[in-house]
Amino acid sequence: MAQQNIYDNDIFFNGYKKIRENDNNANNLFETPALLSLLPELNNKAVLDLGCGYGDHCMEFINRGASKVVGIDISEKMLEIARIENNHPNILYKNMPMENIGMLNERFDVVVSSLAIHYVDDYKGLINNIFNLINENGILVFSQENPLNTCFSKGRRWTKDEKGHRLFANISNYGIDGERESVWFIDNVKKYHRTFSTIINTLIEAGFIIEKLIEPVPTKEILDKHPEYQDLFHKPDFLLVKARKSA
Amino acid sequence: MAQQNIYDNDIFFNGYKKIRENDNNANNLFETPALLSLLPELNNKAVLDLGCGYGDHCMEFINRGASKVVGIDISEKMLEIARIENNHPNILYKNMPMENIGMLNERFDVVVSSLAIHYVDDYKGLINNIFNLINENGILVFSQENPLNTCFSKGRRWTKDEKGHRLFANISNYGIDGERESVWFIDNVKKYHRTFSTIINTLIEAGFIIEKLIEPVPTKEILDKHPEYQDLFHKPDFLLVKARKSA
Repeated sequence: MAQQNIYDNDIFFNGYKKIRENDNNANNLFETPALLSLLPELNNKAVLDLGCGYGDHCMEFINRGASKVVGIDISEKMLEIARIENNHPNILYKNMPMENIGMLNERFDVVVSSLAIHYVDDYKGLINNIFNLINENGILVFSQENPLNTCFSKGRRWTKDEKGHRLFANISNYGIDGERESVWFIDNVKKYHRTFSTIINTLIEAGFIIEKLIEPVPTKEILDKHPEYQDLFHKPDFLLVKARKSA
Repeated sequence: MAQQNIYDNDIFFNGYKKIRENDNNANNLFETPALLSLLPELNNKAVLDLGCGYGDHCMEFINRGASKVVGIDISEKMLEIARIENNHPNILYKNMPMENIGMLNERFDVVVSSLAIHYVDDYKGLINNIFNLINENGILVFSQENPLNTCFSKGRRWTKDEKGHRLFANISNYGIDGERESVWFIDNVKKYHRTFSTIINTLIEAGFIIEKLIEPVPTKEILDKHPEYQDLFHKPDFLLVKARKSA
């Protein structure tokens, strides 16, 4: 099975770069704070970042005391930027699809992945590989698109009223795990939908204990500044999971 | 806070009785098999059934070897039928809202609840009470309406195409926990929506370990006989949870 590397497509890469440069994007306002809130104490910990992109999180882990960080990404273009913007002697960036982490010959205390796991077809294989890479009592923290988002395949995503206000999020095929095609800068970005129960059960079957879930919605402060995020109450963009490898 | 007892309303009771008499209702086809599949070995176990209704499950627990079953229900009408149809010397039926189980002066190995917890406002209080009633390593198994169902407050539940086929399930206010009013035989049946993360996190915070979730969808065999359940792939009716009290 070929791994998908949309990030090395020029059109995608430039479009993505642009939204990431906007400080008020949904990642910065909702996903990153939730992800960081789930991190354990990192002092002297070895951390693996799956889909590290520009390496911002890798540097954050170093700032929080991590002794070693390995950031892997399928996109060499992303890593070129990471090696410049977030260069540190204790961070190693490796160009590798996360489907191949079974080949890594080391163990980690903490594995983190931000908004990348929904691109992976073989979720069960990935989770089992992560389990094998984590030390006992180690922690996995990841974010992905919320299943209420990934389920959608085609058609209108919202039902609006006459004034154009969003009344309902349109959900379809939530109960069917598998590939979805969507348009995000380029056509045919492949994502993989999994129900909440598939996501949770696969972790438990691998040996993880679920510690916390977060589906971020706006605080009053954020809504006052950015009323456009009101719709996240209908359908949160993200799901974050914290799990522990049982000792 | 007043507990809601819709089942003692005559109109509701007779409407409910009628759908339960249809063998091919969604409960019989999807919810009950999933609930029973999550039960642990019951031999010589003490079992508590929260919202036991007609007592069918209580008798099933006895048939599976339970040494003692306590079935509680807020509806005396339901229990009158239970005491006739599912009478057994080792089953005790008690007329009591599940909000009051903190008053029960005994412990159980297994607590089960079928499609009742979404009527309870104080979910956190209920889960903490259940935790206190369960022996160490005891099991909680419950079903409730799926959060994709309970979130909905008003308006059309489905977007249909010109031919009347259901294209999308309409989701609104998923991210906002709390009371919902709906019509089910009678007006203003109060249900309480909780997101997946609230449901899971509350269990974990109480001290439970999540063991398995199920969101039932039809098998091919069921679909062949009952094509009307195709829509469950868009939006499952139920969520089932199995959790263990950590020793």
